[in-house]
Amino acid sequence: MKTEELYALLRRRGVLWPTAEIYGGASGFFDYGPLGTALKRRIEDAWAAWFLGLSDDYYLIEPAEVLPEASVRASGHLENFTDPEVTCDQCQTAFRADTVLEKWRPDGIDGLSPEAIGALLREHAVHCPNCGSTRLSVPPPFNLMFPLDLGPTGRERGYLRPETAQDSYLAFPRMWDVGRRALPLGIAVIGKAYRNEIAPRQLLFRMRSFTQAELQIFFAEGAFPVPLASVESEIIPVVRAASRAAGTEDIQRVSVAELVASGIPDFYVFHLAHLLRFLRDVLGYPAESIRFFEKSDTERAFYNRIQFDAEVRVESLGGFREMGAVHYRGDYDLTRHGAGAKRDLSVALQSGERVLPHVLEVTFGVDRNLWALADTHLVVEGERTVWKLPPHLAPVSVGVFPLLKKEHAAMAQEIRRRLFAAGMRVEYDAAGSIGKRYARMDEAGTPFCITIDGATLDPASPDHGTVTVRERDSKAQRRVAVESVEAAISGPLRLPRPSA
Amino acid sequence: MKTEELYALLRRRGVLWPTAEIYGGASGFFDYGPLGTALKRRIEDAWAAWFLGLSDDYYLIEPAEVLPEASVRASGHLENFTDPEVTCDQCQTAFRADTVLEKWRPDGIDGLSPEAIGALLREHAVHCPNCGSTRLSVPPPFNLMFPLDLGPTGRERGYLRPETAQDSYLAFPRMWDVGRRALPLGIAVIGKAYRNEIAPRQLLFRMRSFTQAELQIFFAEGAFPVPLASVESEIIPVVRAASRAAGTEDIQRVSVAELVASGIPDFYVFHLAHLLRFLRDVLGYPAESIRFFEKSDTERAFYNRIQFDAEVRVESLGGFREMGAVHYRGDYDLTRHGAGAKRDLSVALQSGERVLPHVLEVTFGVDRNLWALADTHLVVEGERTVWKLPPHLAPVSVGVFPLLKKEHAAMAQEIRRRLFAAGMRVEYDAAGSIGKRYARMDEAGTPFCITIDGATLDPASPDHGTVTVRERDSKAQRRVAVESVEAAISGPLRLPRPSA
Repeated sequence: MKTEELYALLRRRGVLWPTAEIYGGASGFFDYGPLGTALKRRIEDAWAAWFLGLSDDYYLIEPAEVLPEASVRASGHLENFTDPEVTCDQCQTAFRADTVLEKWRPDGIDGLSPEAIGALLREHAVHCPNCGSTRLSVPPPFNLMFPLDLGPTGRERGYLRPETAQDSYLAFPRMWDVGRRALPLGIAVIGKAYRNEIAPRQLLFRMRSFTQAELQIFFAEGAFPVPLASVESEIIPVVRAASRAAGTEDIQRVSVAELVASGIPDFYVFHLAHLLRFLRDVLGYPAESIRFFEKSDTERAFYNRIQFDAEVRVESLGGFREMGAVHYRGDYDLTRHGAGAKRDLSVALQSGERVLPHVLEVTFGVDRNLWALADTHLVVEGERTVWKLPPHLAPVSVGVFPLLKKEHAAMAQEIRRRLFAAGMRVEYDAAGSIGKRYARMDEAGTPFCITIDGATLDPASPDHGTVTVRERDSKAQRRVAVESVEAAISGPLRLPRPSA
Repeated sequence: MKTEELYALLRRRGVLWPTAEIYGGASGFFDYGPLGTALKRRIEDAWAAWFLGLSDDYYLIEPAEVLPEASVRASGHLENFTDPEVTCDQCQTAFRADTVLEKWRPDGIDGLSPEAIGALLREHAVHCPNCGSTRLSVPPPFNLMFPLDLGPTGRERGYLRPETAQDSYLAFPRMWDVGRRALPLGIAVIGKAYRNEIAPRQLLFRMRSFTQAELQIFFAEGAFPVPLASVESEIIPVVRAASRAAGTEDIQRVSVAELVASGIPDFYVFHLAHLLRFLRDVLGYPAESIRFFEKSDTERAFYNRIQFDAEVRVESLGGFREMGAVHYRGDYDLTRHGAGAKRDLSVALQSGERVLPHVLEVTFGVDRNLWALADTHLVVEGERTVWKLPPHLAPVSVGVFPLLKKEHAAMAQEIRRRLFAAGMRVEYDAAGSIGKRYARMDEAGTPFCITIDGATLDPASPDHGTVTVRERDSKAQRRVAVESVEAAISGPLRLPRPSA
C-alpha cells in the first residue's frame, strides 16, 4: 500500500491518529487508538520476552524520562546532540540542512561545518522549499533536547531524555548491588525518548516523542561468554562497510562462523543473530526484507567500535529503513559518567580485579516497527483487507460471536470469560452478519474467530457442544468442542522465547 | 514501617531509587528497578482488566503526552494550573505557600489571593524555613506545567500534559467514529503526567513525573444506564461534606441504595462501588483502611458537580491519602474544547437527537498506590520480611529452585519454561540455601516457590515425579506432581475482573 492509503486505513480503524487532531494536530506527535495501543504493548512484551530471555542477568527497569543537566553534559548530548539547520530569512521557516541539500548531497552532510553548508547553499543557488526565496542562512546547530526548568527558581535544569540508554548507564551502580554483583549484567528500558526534530516527517519514523526498547549489557573486556553454538546455523544478511567502500551495497549472506572469522567478536555476533531471529521469527518480517548495514569508521559515532544497523524493507517508505541496531560502545559511557559524577564506576570481580565495564547495546524502535508491521502484513486480497500479523502479536487474540445476538449470548459470554481468564485478548461482537464480523476482525489482524450457533446449544444436533473456529489467513473453519477451544488456539498465541 | 525504613528496604531490593542517583538525584523523579517495574506494570494491567471490564464500550488508548498550547488554554490549565508560591528574598529559595502557612492554615489556602497570603506572612511574622529570614514575598502564582518549544523557530509551543484526562477529551471525536457511534463511550489512558512541583516531597506522593490511570466516560445527560443491582450488596464508607460541615469526619457506612436515595446518581454510585471493589478486592487494602471523602462546593473545582476522593490509610505517611477519585464533570470539557477548537463536538444519537456528552471521570494514581501497596502489605514477622501482595499483583509469580545447582537443573529449567509459556512471571534461583532463596522471594512478594530435589528424579522414591510447592503466607509445603504444577498455582495468579 502507498503511505497515504495505509495511514488512512490505520486512522479509520483506530490504530493511530495525529495528537490533538481537533486542534489541527501537533507536528511530530501521534496518538495510538485501541488497536494501536494493544499492538504496541504486544510488541513491547515480545521484545522483553525475547531479549530478557537471553540471560537471567538481563533486567527490565522503568526510569524517569527526565535527566539532570550534569548527566547530559557528561554524556556529550548537551554539546553534540544537534542537527544542522537552514532557516529562510524571508518566511522564517526552519529546515533540516540535510533535507534542503538532499538533491546535491544524497549521502548526507555529516561533518560539514555551518560555513561549508552556507557555501553549498550559495554554490547551488538553493531556494527555500517553502516560499522560494534564496535568502537562506545557517544558524548554529540546533540542540534536539527539550530542556525543562525544574521548580520556580530556574536554578535546576533537566532534559527530556534523548535516548533511554542514558538511564541504564546511570542505574548501573545501583543495579550492580540489586543483581548478583557479577558481569555480564544487562539493563533494559522500554520507554519514551524525545527529540525536538526541526522538521518531523514520515509519520512514525521521525517523531518528537517516541518509544525505544533498548538493552545495555555491561561486561568485562575480553570476558563475555556466549553460547555461540545455539546460533551457528544462522545465515546473516550483511552489507559490509568494506564492500560499500569498494562500490557495492549488495547483501552478502554469511554464516555466523564467517562473521566471527572476519573479526567481529562472538558476543557481538551472538546478539546480532538474536536480533535477526527476533525480526524474522517473532515480528515476522520476510528474511529477504532484512539486512544488517555496517557503519564505517567515519559514519558511526566515535565511541562506537562496531555498529550494524538492522534495516527492514518498508515499501510505503521507499526501501530499507533502520529498525534497530547493535552497538559495541567500549567503556565510553561509564568513563564519561564516572568523570561527570566524580565517582569511580568500576566494579570488583570475584577474582578481586577491578574493571570498568564495556557496553554492548541492542536498540529497537517500537513505533517505526509498528508502522513496518502494518506495511508488511496488512494486505488487500480482492474484497478482503487482512492484517496477517503473527498470531502472538495480534491486538485481539480471538473474536467471540453469538450467531444470534440474544439466543446465543449466554454461552458466548461464558466462552469469552474463560478465554480472558486464560490470558487472551478477547473481543465480543454481536453486531451485523457473521461475514461483516469476520471482515472487521480480519482488518484488525485477529487470528481466530469463534461462533456460537444453534447447533452448539441443540442436544439433537450432531454438532451439539461444539463451536465454529475460523482461522484468519486460510479462512478455514472447523467445529471444536466448547471445552477444547482454549487448547485449540492457545499455541500460536504464546510469545516466542529464545531456546536455550 | 516508618517511611525511611520502608524506603531503604525498597531501594535495597531494587523496587525504586532516585533518578540519576550518582549525580545526587533529581528532585521529584524516581526510577523503578526490576521489582518495581514488574509491580507497576501489574497494577496497570489490573486496573485495565477491572475498569475496561465494566463495559465493551470502554477502550484503552495511548496518546502522546505533549499537548498544543491552544488545547491547554481551552482547558483552563494555562490560566489556572498554578500553586501559590512564597519566595525568600534572602536565600532565593521557593516554597509552596500552603506548606509555609501550614501551622496557621491547616486546612490550606485555597482561594486566597497573593495579597491575602502576603498579609498572613506579615501577621504571623513567618520565618523562611530554609534560612530563617523574614524577608518572604509572594510572586504571582506559578504555573505547574512544563512548556516545550517545538522546533527551532519558537513559533509553536507545547506542554507536557498536566493530566492524562485531556487526551481523552481531545480523542473523543475520533473515538466516536472508531467505536460504535453510541453513548456511553469510555476512553481510558494509562500514562505519564507532569507537574512542575515547587517542592516535591513525600516520595511517590508528590512527583514531577507520575503515572495516572484515568477513565473518562462520555454519556448523554439523563441516559446512563448501569446494572446497579450487581453492586447493591456493597456498603460504602463515606465522609459526607454535610457531616463535615456539621463538625464530624467520622466514616459513615452506607448502602448503595442509601447513597442513591441521598441524591447521588446511580451511574455515579455504580462506578464508586466498583472503585471500592478494586481497592479492596483487587489491590487488597483492608476495608477499614478505605474511605470516600466527599468534597464540598467550595473545595472541588467549579466544574465538578460531584466529587468523592478515594482515600486509603497509609501509615508511613501519617494517615488517609488520596489514591483516586470519581468526578462528575458535566459538559465542561467538551464545551471548552469545542470553543477552543471551534468545532461542534456534539454527536447525533440513534434517535436523531444531538447532544453534547457529559463526562464521568474515574482517576487513579499508579505510583502512590505502588507505595501504599508496600506500606500495607510489606510486614516484618520476627526474622522474616514478607511482602503479602495479592498473588495476582506479585512481580514474580513463582520462584523455581533446583535443590542442587547442577543435578536438578535440567528438570527445573524444563518446569520454568512451561510456567513461562503459561504466562507466569518466573524467577529461577539456584544460589544459596533453600531458606535463603525462600527469604528473597518472601521479600519480593512471590506467592509460590517450587523446589526440584532428589526425590523428584529418583524412580525409587515415593515422591518420584513430584516437586515441593511452598506457599508464601502460610509457609505450607506440599508435594505436587510435575504435570500438575501449573494447575496447582494458576488460580490465584489470574487478574480479577468485575462479574457481570
